[in-house]
Amino acid sequence: MEALKAEIIGVGTEILLGQICNNNAQWMSERLAQIGVDVAYHQAVGDNLDRIETAFRLALSRSDVVIATGGLGPTQDDITREGIAAALEVRLVRHPEIEDFLREKFARLGRRMAEINLVQADVPEGAEYILPDRGTAPGLICVTPQRKRMYAVPGVPAEMREMMTGTVLPELAALAGPSALVSRTIRLTGIAESKVAEILDDLFRASANPSVAYLASSGEVKVRLTAKATTREEAERLIEPLALEVHARLPGFVFTTTDEELEQVIARLLDALGATVACAESLTGGSLALRLSAAPGASSYFKGSAVTYTAEAKRDILGVSQQTMDGPGVVSEECAREMALGTRRIFQADLGLAVTGVAGPDPHDGKPPGTVCLALAWDRGRQSDSFRAPGDREQVRRWAEQSALDMLRHRLEDQLRADT
Amino acid sequence: MEALKAEIIGVGTEILLGQICNNNAQWMSERLAQIGVDVAYHQAVGDNLDRIETAFRLALSRSDVVIATGGLGPTQDDITREGIAAALEVRLVRHPEIEDFLREKFARLGRRMAEINLVQADVPEGAEYILPDRGTAPGLICVTPQRKRMYAVPGVPAEMREMMTGTVLPELAALAGPSALVSRTIRLTGIAESKVAEILDDLFRASANPSVAYLASSGEVKVRLTAKATTREEAERLIEPLALEVHARLPGFVFTTTDEELEQVIARLLDALGATVACAESLTGGSLALRLSAAPGASSYFKGSAVTYTAEAKRDILGVSQQTMDGPGVVSEECAREMALGTRRIFQADLGLAVTGVAGPDPHDGKPPGTVCLALAWDRGRQSDSFRAPGDREQVRRWAEQSALDMLRHRLEDQLRADT
Repeated sequence: MEALKAEIIGVGTEILLGQICNNNAQWMSERLAQIGVDVAYHQAVGDNLDRIETAFRLALSRSDVVIATGGLGPTQDDITREGIAAALEVRLVRHPEIEDFLREKFARLGRRMAEINLVQADVPEGAEYILPDRGTAPGLICVTPQRKRMYAVPGVPAEMREMMTGTVLPELAALAGPSALVSRTIRLTGIAESKVAEILDDLFRASANPSVAYLASSGEVKVRLTAKATTREEAERLIEPLALEVHARLPGFVFTTTDEELEQVIARLLDALGATVACAESLTGGSLALRLSAAPGASSYFKGSAVTYTAEAKRDILGVSQQTMDGPGVVSEECAREMALGTRRIFQADLGLAVTGVAGPDPHDGKPPGTVCLALAWDRGRQSDSFRAPGDREQVRRWAEQSALDMLRHRLEDQLRADT
Repeated sequence: MEALKAEIIGVGTEILLGQICNNNAQWMSERLAQIGVDVAYHQAVGDNLDRIETAFRLALSRSDVVIATGGLGPTQDDITREGIAAALEVRLVRHPEIEDFLREKFARLGRRMAEINLVQADVPEGAEYILPDRGTAPGLICVTPQRKRMYAVPGVPAEMREMMTGTVLPELAALAGPSALVSRTIRLTGIAESKVAEILDDLFRASANPSVAYLASSGEVKVRLTAKATTREEAERLIEPLALEVHARLPGFVFTTTDEELEQVIARLLDALGATVACAESLTGGSLALRLSAAPGASSYFKGSAVTYTAEAKRDILGVSQQTMDGPGVVSEECAREMALGTRRIFQADLGLAVTGVAGPDPHDGKPPGTVCLALAWDRGRQSDSFRAPGDREQVRRWAEQSALDMLRHRLEDQLRADT
């Protein structure tokens, strides 16, 4: 059986004005993919009847399933109902039982219902409706003479998700039958996207299932393998050998084959080793701490971070020596090493991880923007590194963060290998 | 003159799979609106040549300007160049000067260039190209025989923004002529969205220009006033009296009438007072530090933060008393007060700001998830506060962060009033 082809239409001038981001489309797409429905197109249109009608007609001409979000509220600019009726060439019929539902809903909330809300009881002739738990806007389910399905759900994310989860996704999962699309994301750091693509080129040139996609962001490359099969297990089986091969070809660079964040990988390693870490940061301004403390239960492996934004704080709190400050300065591997030792000591942690540098845009302490110095200290050793990161302030911070965490990851992996 | 009608096309299967959100469309839409270009449609299509071509043809049939993002990279699934050439019915021509640019770019970064990168030197016949500062993917500018303009820019947000800001937006602003859509965002904290809407209801009920939109996120409400006029100045004049009235009705809650981040407002106040701040955080895990250090030049007012994730670190580094730890515990206003005093001392800052609490999902130290305790210490006093924040771990952290920064803002504003 061919997979169901779906299309998502975001309705609302606020999307086209850039006042809100069409996050609903992402959420819906991800869920539809999981039940084996192919999303082939997204559209967004404003609160304009002609354009809404045209968008629905186009979608119905090329997709099996159309799901619209937004424009179901009670105000004058909520005209998705009218747009659907126009595209289907039917009239809107007011449903007294929805009127009753609305009146009761408002009464229960102790609010007076403005008459304007009753437009929400209008349903295209022949269509079904979905009564909401949250909010007041009913959803719509229309089936065309060609057996195409058109859904309309509210634009408010929580209300949209309620109807998708409660009604739309179960209906479509039943129609889609046993089919699964599974993605596995392998994430790498310390290597350029084009280099990754070159090394994997032959592996993927001929592979349609799983398909492969590359995504690059500051300090990281993602390789996403997506397989389609009738069951989840079968799709996983298609992905597994390729994922292993990617890992084997890029040892050291791959930090996860299951889409974990770098800090999650580190948390796992620290847990396995029963070890703790503390940080000392200036350039990264607290982002190492933020990432290492993101997960619930982080306090079992993360002790804290000294965010020392001044030379005095590096000296007074972390014990960086006057000699280092007067000599190589606060932007140096020497300083990073002393910071790593200092934070390890004051937090009584097994590992101390430190970053200093120049985020920019201006030079600092005689060093150019982008200069990053890292160091790691542990019971039996220490290491350090320095480099120039590309990009603006935000990118430099991201590179520094990523490189520091990756230094820690490598150390923990070595340790775990040595222990076992 | 009719406004230019624009359409944005996001290219990439990862968008349709819901693996990434099409945030680029929002960013571009917002900027296009500001220069008076009407965005009438968004589309998103996958990495499929036929569908990309069809999307471009549809867009060219109904819009004056088409801007595509994504699919310009060096890998096999980057086929936006081919899609544009097909829609325009021209061939792709390799440009040796782009090849040279790519080789030099890689050489400058000290990296070997994979041959695969050279596909980025392919340009549809007759089109112009935009060489990138960031990244390696050139952008494209095509003008059709019907004088419609088609741009392609990379999907990586920083690279997209560079070309939009440097080339596409200036070109379109010149074509659009004198027309301006100006938005002013007034941001409030410490008050619920529905309360804001109620207080401002009469003010906006009849106002179409400026129009008003409310947006709520954790710990913050935004009120956006949008005015359309032939010049920027005229639009600003329409907005000004309403912005002032909003401020007058919600004194204390409004922290900016010019869309600044709360930390920017604080930076301005600290600069004006010549004062410095240091933080002590556990619950917020470094995010206070990150926000206060985000701006270039932050080191003139931000001294640092002690991210103390354990009771021992609170005691050893910040000097929280054993009495407090044994009595009210590490999740208490007493502890927050001692943390604030401690960080002020160790960083030698004028103000010490502290947060402790329970991010969740589990209780900690006998206190339920969502418990937030804040304190601020300065030369002549201190204050503290505690409350239960709603939501999950991330929302609790965001509320805590926002409330702590707002406590600091109020203190600084009082100080500035006292000084003048």
